[in-house]
Amino acid sequence: MGKLVFYYGVMGCSKTANALITRFQYLEKGKKVLLIKPALDTRDNIDNKSIIASRIGIQAEAYAVRIDESIASLLSRDTYDIIICDEAQFLTTAQVNELRNLSKYIDIICYGLRTDFQSHLFEGSKRLFELADNIYEIEGVCTCGKKAVINARLTADKKIIYHGDQLELGGNDKYVGMCWDCWQRGNI
Amino acid sequence: MGKLVFYYGVMGCSKTANALITRFQYLEKGKKVLLIKPALDTRDNIDNKSIIASRIGIQAEAYAVRIDESIASLLSRDTYDIIICDEAQFLTTAQVNELRNLSKYIDIICYGLRTDFQSHLFEGSKRLFELADNIYEIEGVCTCGKKAVINARLTADKKIIYHGDQLELGGNDKYVGMCWDCWQRGNI
Amino acid sequence: MGKLVFYYGVMGCSKTANALITRFQYLEKGKKVLLIKPALDTRDNIDNKSIIASRIGIQAEAYAVRIDESIASLLSRDTYDIIICDEAQFLTTAQVNELRNLSKYIDIICYGLRTDFQSHLFEGSKRLFELADNIYEIEGVCTCGKKAVINARLTADKKIIYHGDQLELGGNDKYVGMCWDCWQRGNI
Amino acid sequence: MGKLVFYYGVMGCSKTANALITRFQYLEKGKKVLLIKPALDTRDNIDNKSIIASRIGIQAEAYAVRIDESIASLLSRDTYDIIICDEAQFLTTAQVNELRNLSKYIDIICYGLRTDFQSHLFEGSKRLFELADNIYEIEGVCTCGKKAVINARLTADKKIIYHGDQLELGGNDKYVGMCWDCWQRGNI
Repeated sequence: MGKLVFYYGVMGCSKTANALITRFQYLEKGKKVLLIKPALDTRDNIDNKSIIASRIGIQAEAYAVRIDESIASLLSRDTYDIIICDEAQFLTTAQVNELRNLSKYIDIICYGLRTDFQSHLFEGSKRLFELADNIYEIEGVCTCGKKAVINARLTADKKIIYHGDQLELGGNDKYVGMCWDCWQRGNI
Repeated sequence: MGKLVFYYGVMGCSKTANALITRFQYLEKGKKVLLIKPALDTRDNIDNKSIIASRIGIQAEAYAVRIDESIASLLSRDTYDIIICDEAQFLTTAQVNELRNLSKYIDIICYGLRTDFQSHLFEGSKRLFELADNIYEIEGVCTCGKKAVINARLTADKKIIYHGDQLELGGNDKYVGMCWDCWQRGNI
Repeated sequence: MGKLVFYYGVMGCSKTANALITRFQYLEKGKKVLLIKPALDTRDNIDNKSIIASRIGIQAEAYAVRIDESIASLLSRDTYDIIICDEAQFLTTAQVNELRNLSKYIDIICYGLRTDFQSHLFEGSKRLFELADNIYEIEGVCTCGKKAVINARLTADKKIIYHGDQLELGGNDKYVGMCWDCWQRGNI
Repeated sequence: MGKLVFYYGVMGCSKTANALITRFQYLEKGKKVLLIKPALDTRDNIDNKSIIASRIGIQAEAYAVRIDESIASLLSRDTYDIIICDEAQFLTTAQVNELRNLSKYIDIICYGLRTDFQSHLFEGSKRLFELADNIYEIEGVCTCGKKAVINARLTADKKIIYHGDQLELGGNDKYVGMCWDCWQRGNI
């Protein structure tokens, strides 16, 4: 009997580092870990193999789950003690529903962004807020020192962009976690 | 400099009792508390006065905020140290945005349901998950002993209803917090 | 398979109200609750019957466990689904050890003060910090608006007392939750 | 106006990795971080320079604070935005008191063990449980899959030792986080 857990946080709050540390801890205990991420994020994805890397200098290979792929099918091919998912904001509603059902048998820990650059939930984070057994924040900090709650999208010369498509892949060059006030005042 | 906090939980998890206890604690410290609830819930609403009551036997009068009413305007009429909102799932997106801005000056604590009887976010809870500084759960328990994560809607003879309108007011007679498995199996 | 949970907080943070609400929630689900408190607190104790009362206006009868009494023996007389303990700071080390062992079979939730009027752990809270599966805070607020972390002992004319015996029973007339700075500066 | 925060956990739960990630996040934001650890842990300490290293493959140089050294004096030599302390269970009561006072001006985050191999608090963790503004757990897992709450001390051939001195330095070869039941039954 497992649990579905969601750790959310802003860009740059070390979600990936936390996912890798959790994986490491289970591996040390001799557990079998299925590390996945939605394939939507194609920055470093070839076939179903994808590298999950944290800026702090640690990484691991994950299984990149395609948007129309069943996560349950992965479990039927091999046995695991836990599923860890990075970039969980990009999971589909159907995939989170699937994780919800799988959590009857296995622990599942998801790491992902809360909201997009306009403060709206992603499909995956929305469904995780609706269904997770436990919701925890990995706190990020704004440059002003306050807690960051929104992911600002930046132009190349570090101006905040307030309009555009929800999906535009990028790392710390293009996104930065900010507090509400600084974000509203464009105070980067 | 305040914070916007969201306590979410299933039906019957004592959200209202917690709201009233928090209010009591601030009153004891000599603080001025603005207790509000969205007027959408018209069960006991006359004009802008509404009674917030917990089954455990405590209650207080709240200001019932109409769907098109500005919460900021209430603050301009009187000064307060804290805003406490019950049934926050029924706030509008515009009202949560307003609370987000007001939290620059004053602490705001919202209590509300996470999701409706089909496991979907309400307008108010959705916006609070997107914007709150802190998100905490008030845990509820399923009859089976596991943690409750969904609000089942019940017929008069205690069968689970899976289809219908999102809004259908009712208390513990009509709704019950359940775990995912029991809910899916209709195992009330 | 249960858990041993410790909710700690300062004087006046509504620990008792929370204990009673949790009890109420389990009773509503048809669960059998064993409500206990250490008999050391003799304010309203006759034999093994003691009233647990919150200032907000709710109360219930608890079993007052004597300092040399076994909690396990209570379970052998009757069956319960959960044990809820108020004033848990007054439990003995042996009793917390006993709860730790009992938590293999039953959920146990303890509510109690963190520290005494000189910022030192009590016997019961010390052992609970050492052994609990989960430790949560019920936050209290200082008059200055900051979070309260210490329980100041007061004279009849509301001056802070910094020396004396650890145990001196009293309620909100004699103790008040304060932040560290106000307490150090005697700034009540 | 800062806060004193204590993250506790068992051996092998990634406390050090978390300390280094938090440091990294603040450095990325251009903040000045004072990374310290009590010099009591002399495994890799030369003068006041000590390497803090996580098994996952990240490390940083810390200032090793001697048992009789003032942490405040470090702040007078240089300015910092935050203090991060690893192995905080080895701080003295006086040093935690000092951190408590310094937290008026600066944020302080401590990472450390909860208890020793006999389930008793260390001097530093005891004082942090008494005084911290916020107490969070970094969860560790027992081999059996349950949550780890105690640090078992092991012989070279992996038997649990139940008696001895509180202090006996060692890493994952000598200590392992376990749940209460497995520890009591010697079930490693």
